[in-house]
Amino acid sequence: MRDRLRLGFLGPHATFTEQALRTLPESHDAELVPLPGAPAVLAAVRDGSVDAGCVPIENTVEGAVPPVLDGLVEDPPLVIAREARIAVRFCLLGKGGTGLADVRTVASHGHGIAQVRGWLATHLPDAEVRVSSSTAEAAAQAARGEVDAAVAAPLAASQHGLAVLADDIADNAGAATRFVLLTRSGPPPSPTGWDRTTLAATTTNRPGTLLGLLTELAVRGIDLTRIESRPVKDRHAEYWFHLDCSGHVTEPAMGEALAALHRRCDRLLYLGSYPRSDAPPAPVAGSGSPVVPLGAASVDDYVASERWLAAIREGAGT
Amino acid sequence: MRDRLRLGFLGPHATFTEQALRTLPESHDAELVPLPGAPAVLAAVRDGSVDAGCVPIENTVEGAVPPVLDGLVEDPPLVIAREARIAVRFCLLGKGGTGLADVRTVASHGHGIAQVRGWLATHLPDAEVRVSSSTAEAAAQAARGEVDAAVAAPLAASQHGLAVLADDIADNAGAATRFVLLTRSGPPPSPTGWDRTTLAATTTNRPGTLLGLLTELAVRGIDLTRIESRPVKDRHAEYWFHLDCSGHVTEPAMGEALAALHRRCDRLLYLGSYPRSDAPPAPVAGSGSPVVPLGAASVDDYVASERWLAAIREGAGT
Amino acid sequence: MRDRLRLGFLGPHATFTEQALRTLPESHDAELVPLPGAPAVLAAVRDGSVDAGCVPIENTVEGAVPPVLDGLVEDPPLVIAREARIAVRFCLLGKGGTGLADVRTVASHGHGIAQVRGWLATHLPDAEVRVSSSTAEAAAQAARGEVDAAVAAPLAASQHGLAVLADDIADNAGAATRFVLLTRSGPPPSPTGWDRTTLAATTTNRPGTLLGLLTELAVRGIDLTRIESRPVKDRHAEYWFHLDCSGHVTEPAMGEALAALHRRCDRLLYLGSYPRSDAPPAPVAGSGSPVVPLGAASVDDYVASERWLAAIREGAGT
Amino acid sequence: MRDRLRLGFLGPHATFTEQALRTLPESHDAELVPLPGAPAVLAAVRDGSVDAGCVPIENTVEGAVPPVLDGLVEDPPLVIAREARIAVRFCLLGKGGTGLADVRTVASHGHGIAQVRGWLATHLPDAEVRVSSSTAEAAAQAARGEVDAAVAAPLAASQHGLAVLADDIADNAGAATRFVLLTRSGPPPSPTGWDRTTLAATTTNRPGTLLGLLTELAVRGIDLTRIESRPVKDRHAEYWFHLDCSGHVTEPAMGEALAALHRRCDRLLYLGSYPRSDAPPAPVAGSGSPVVPLGAASVDDYVASERWLAAIREGAGT
Repeated sequence: MRDRLRLGFLGPHATFTEQALRTLPESHDAELVPLPGAPAVLAAVRDGSVDAGCVPIENTVEGAVPPVLDGLVEDPPLVIAREARIAVRFCLLGKGGTGLADVRTVASHGHGIAQVRGWLATHLPDAEVRVSSSTAEAAAQAARGEVDAAVAAPLAASQHGLAVLADDIADNAGAATRFVLLTRSGPPPSPTGWDRTTLAATTTNRPGTLLGLLTELAVRGIDLTRIESRPVKDRHAEYWFHLDCSGHVTEPAMGEALAALHRRCDRLLYLGSYPRSDAPPAPVAGSGSPVVPLGAASVDDYVASERWLAAIREGAGT
Repeated sequence: MRDRLRLGFLGPHATFTEQALRTLPESHDAELVPLPGAPAVLAAVRDGSVDAGCVPIENTVEGAVPPVLDGLVEDPPLVIAREARIAVRFCLLGKGGTGLADVRTVASHGHGIAQVRGWLATHLPDAEVRVSSSTAEAAAQAARGEVDAAVAAPLAASQHGLAVLADDIADNAGAATRFVLLTRSGPPPSPTGWDRTTLAATTTNRPGTLLGLLTELAVRGIDLTRIESRPVKDRHAEYWFHLDCSGHVTEPAMGEALAALHRRCDRLLYLGSYPRSDAPPAPVAGSGSPVVPLGAASVDDYVASERWLAAIREGAGT
Repeated sequence: MRDRLRLGFLGPHATFTEQALRTLPESHDAELVPLPGAPAVLAAVRDGSVDAGCVPIENTVEGAVPPVLDGLVEDPPLVIAREARIAVRFCLLGKGGTGLADVRTVASHGHGIAQVRGWLATHLPDAEVRVSSSTAEAAAQAARGEVDAAVAAPLAASQHGLAVLADDIADNAGAATRFVLLTRSGPPPSPTGWDRTTLAATTTNRPGTLLGLLTELAVRGIDLTRIESRPVKDRHAEYWFHLDCSGHVTEPAMGEALAALHRRCDRLLYLGSYPRSDAPPAPVAGSGSPVVPLGAASVDDYVASERWLAAIREGAGT
Repeated sequence: MRDRLRLGFLGPHATFTEQALRTLPESHDAELVPLPGAPAVLAAVRDGSVDAGCVPIENTVEGAVPPVLDGLVEDPPLVIAREARIAVRFCLLGKGGTGLADVRTVASHGHGIAQVRGWLATHLPDAEVRVSSSTAEAAAQAARGEVDAAVAAPLAASQHGLAVLADDIADNAGAATRFVLLTRSGPPPSPTGWDRTTLAATTTNRPGTLLGLLTELAVRGIDLTRIESRPVKDRHAEYWFHLDCSGHVTEPAMGEALAALHRRCDRLLYLGSYPRSDAPPAPVAGSGSPVVPLGAASVDDYVASERWLAAIREGAGT
């Protein structure tokens, strides 16, 4: 009998994904299992070799987003149980005692290199830059002495026994990446009042169909927080639309919207309702007329309107 | 104990409204009670002095539409139980033996005069035209000898013992008027598959609110067959929107739309679901791609989507 | 040579329409010509026998709205040059020296009777009520001694030498009626910043077409202030939509919207741009985030966006 | 003086990007310059060190899409001059004489590995799989003898002197990737009747704003062929929406839509109009009622509607 959760993640150790996973309460006391690429993480969740898996889903520096999206729509179904958002902070890592002047070769993942391009041009204009398969692999190369330094996550320093030669070197400070913890299908976590629901949908390829889907959401006051289109495999000019929406599957507005999308889409995948990791917007001070979402209504409004409908169907006057 | 239905109508006898009422099965064996004006009909239904009342609601030649609309939104609530549509056919009526050459004075309701203006200019260019309070009253004037002829409904000939001097004299042949039979609130007639639902709604006076209402209908595949705006009494720049929609209150798409409007409107009146009097459109021959209403879905689609929603809320995979 | 304007109106003298016309600057020094019914007014403008004509278009007590709407879409085209809005104030008029106790017969137009029903029930419960073809005709009947009193406009008292037996007797005080002054086609009055544009449109009878029209307006920030549907003569289930919109034909947003409707409608009639008679809404005090109409943009915004478009078409970077 | 075009591409040599670039007429006689990553390609176009650059933009197996999207919205502006679409065909490459039974180590880019997972599990279940920084680098590793085989593009075989050990091994045959050729700002290629326009837009972060943008397109009959959201750097919860639309900047419908988006968006980038690489849909045989895009209108329709608008502004009747 297994008594510890096994959680897979986009490895190797010391990636930004591991860093994100460690911020989640599920990771405490769990066994963290690095897996070679996002598709491997999804496969391990599906075949039960891990209990859940963590992958980046938005704005990643490791390049994993398209395969994550494409993998989510495969069978058997997966759901998002939780999300984490971490600031992407790049460091220049090297062996202890290395000075900037000693760095003639630098390695990182291609996306990592892109995000520190300006810093490298200023501080290491003559260094040779090498592309690695991940930022963690770049740190491993530095630890093995194959390169003088690596651009990687802070976590990689301790894991590979490296020193931080320069901290916070991204050209655009403050970029964040969103990660999700995936599980096999199951009941959603309870609503918190500040939740997100993730969907994927395909429609017949006709003008206006995407507008139709978005109208189903907007008319019920459901806000869209992210949208991506990914080609359906083997179907020319057909797309999976990946949607992140405000709200929780147990709420009436979301339930009605999901049922409507189910009627309208060729295929609709419910990919989980879970607490949002970003903070709710602060109320705008001194504003007498808040901008209410088109069609927004509270749970009480739904209950009252259902009661009214039942009454008029029985012949009561309005 | 009363054993016959009492049905009020916009009188006097022999109006187009009486003619319409006589086409409805409810009028057989019923006592038909002429009442002086549409407001009087509505009041009589409300106070129970008649069981139901018939008034014109669209395209009338007697000018009654605005007061009918304004009266429908008053208390206590009324509902439409049935509708009738009749071709508006104008005749020139006079005492037996009158020839066109004898007609020096002609009476009719103002709207009736407007619709035979061309015919009068051609055939009775020198006749004096007098305005009456209804086409039926014009016929009565002709019967009393106060005018030589009246422009009125065919029914008025028999009721006033007049001859038809000229038939079908409207400048635009084929105009139809729609009439409704009103009752106090009660369960709607059973759905027939070709029904209409009538609503009245007020909203806060902000740009885009009407568009919001219509989107709630369109997104659920409900077609709008008539729309009117009438000022709300005593409220500057605020309107009652009167809407006729395809469908029946017992259908899921209509139920969901009504509940949505109830949440969104300041006030929403359900004014009845009842069989449509017009014929359904013939299917377009040879058309491979019928134009499906935005968001249209069958009852089976609704049942299937509700079942799917219940399953994912319990944790089943999609 | 004619040196005075001739202005037709829905007569006879002393109707609410004459009262409205007298509030317009055009009526000063003009010859006011009463005409028997709204269709007669439209015909007189069209054939040039008057220079302009005044008719009610909204919420009238004389029942003229449907024929006005139906007449506006006929040929040759007419345009609205100005509008007037007057409070509808009903008086009980009778010969001097008449007391309420002396009134045994009361006449009025059917709609007038409807609006004072409560007052009559309280103050003249035993009086016989007679329907006239207009409120002015009812006053004439009172002047001729055919009835003891008339429910009519204040103007009717002086015109028929009658005394006001009771003033302001409408059950719902404060109802207003809107009147329009029609002319043959011609350049619109200059924009004032608070204008209205009136349109009539027919579309193919397909679900969603009305929503399409309203979206063309809303997407450009044009607000709809009134909408009516009137059956197209001789075409079953086809409608003219009568629309009042905020804005002026010379403004870019309105111009673009009109061109769009012209492309989309089977037939589109421009029925004039003219100053609004109602007051603009007061700005909401203390509101930090005014609700901006969907798509609203200023003339400057349009100029800037056109300039940007021209630049990118020539290859300038954005 | 330089007489050959210099075209950068996402290198190294033998990537799918080089393969795509070679399908474009611009590549004939041009100097093809491999560059380390998509950000390097964009930078080289911007600084003039190449005349144009080719990068994947959709569904890539090399993971480059997010940095391409993020790089496109930086300064100075770039535009897409052309697109190419190639089938992504994976081969197993090794030194001549290698049999499947000899393969104990296989390298590829992480996304490449994901797409041949099934094939590897069946045919090389015991091989060790290594992640490379690109499929071309994997082929180079095979050529250097560091691994026994590489999963890569067919082009890599000839460039690295390798044999094709197995062809067309992707689990989902037929996936295509879209590539774009970027240049500095300049006039667009002439319209061909089957063009695409690419845009990027940011809006204030309010519910319904994305729906507003899409409505501006749909109401003018412009179809959306791709949509992605990418977080705006340093701005929490704000997005760049990347949109591919049907049509060309010189067409009136597209021009009006672009101007409308310019008025409505915080920032709008025009990223080029260019011929589409996919085939237009075949007309549906025997269909009497083609589904017309919401608001679609021809150039002639636009010309006619502009002429009509000019006429009514001058006072002509409609």
